[in-house]
Amino acid sequence: MEQVLKQVLDGWSLQIKTANKVIESLSDEQLAGDIAPGKNSGVYLLGHLVTVHDGVLPLMGLGDKIFPEMENVFLRSPDKSGLPHPDVQTLRRNWLDINEKLNEHFAGFSLNNWMERHTAVSEEAFANEPHRNKLNILISRTSHLAYHLGQIALLK
Amino acid sequence: MEQVLKQVLDGWSLQIKTANKVIESLSDEQLAGDIAPGKNSGVYLLGHLVTVHDGVLPLMGLGDKIFPEMENVFLRSPDKSGLPHPDVQTLRRNWLDINEKLNEHFAGFSLNNWMERHTAVSEEAFANEPHRNKLNILISRTSHLAYHLGQIALLK
Repeated sequence: MEQVLKQVLDGWSLQIKTANKVIESLSDEQLAGDIAPGKNSGVYLLGHLVTVHDGVLPLMGLGDKIFPEMENVFLRSPDKSGLPHPDVQTLRRNWLDINEKLNEHFAGFSLNNWMERHTAVSEEAFANEPHRNKLNILISRTSHLAYHLGQIALLK
Repeated sequence: MEQVLKQVLDGWSLQIKTANKVIESLSDEQLAGDIAPGKNSGVYLLGHLVTVHDGVLPLMGLGDKIFPEMENVFLRSPDKSGLPHPDVQTLRRNWLDINEKLNEHFAGFSLNNWMERHTAVSEEAFANEPHRNKLNILISRTSHLAYHLGQIALLK
């Protein structure tokens, strides 16, 4: 069991490390470009990933978002909304900060912690759907990151 | 434990289901297009996913590849190599077939089966690196699929 959980966490860590490498390999100008004509920009996707990972904090009962102001522009609005947003240097730093924060929390998680319900599911629903737990958030965010990483990598 | 393993398998199944939806939503003409100027075509990525998933069979000791002839064009060669390859209708069918085959095998896997070494690692190395097991293949293929799915989705 511990081995299975360890491998899930390693899978998350590998995606974060890979994402950091890809993002660091791109210039601010490259990140400002669109991944394909008429599609999202690298900056939007980076901001989107920051706010989605930031959302894991309240979802896992680990506290409030660090960057709540980013949700409206990078999650509730499409790219090129014209809404003001942090510059790319700030987004790069926020990306490293939120993942460092999450990993600090995860380092202290026991198997029981991972099996706890996340805050988007009621105790009643959770009783019948035990998979709606914190581990499920980690697994889905790992694939979500890989999905957008495949797009950001197109900016190279 | 069983719950953790179940959630990893559900994560794989969800990516397969999502991929099937996206691929079915694209016309043959859309799949023939490039995901971005100068990047891979949808057809190449579909063939790449088929041959990578096909490679899981020998890697997990489940038998030989079903489509060995696809490895050279979709794994060892870049897109637009000019090498002959199956048409898109065949690739669509191969994609469903290989995943059905894999899921038939996985349905019979016990936790111990998932903890077994994959064939790309020696017994000696595996003794010191127990994570180089069949579960690791599943976790890495799940992220690999999500990565390319984010690209194929751009063809919509």
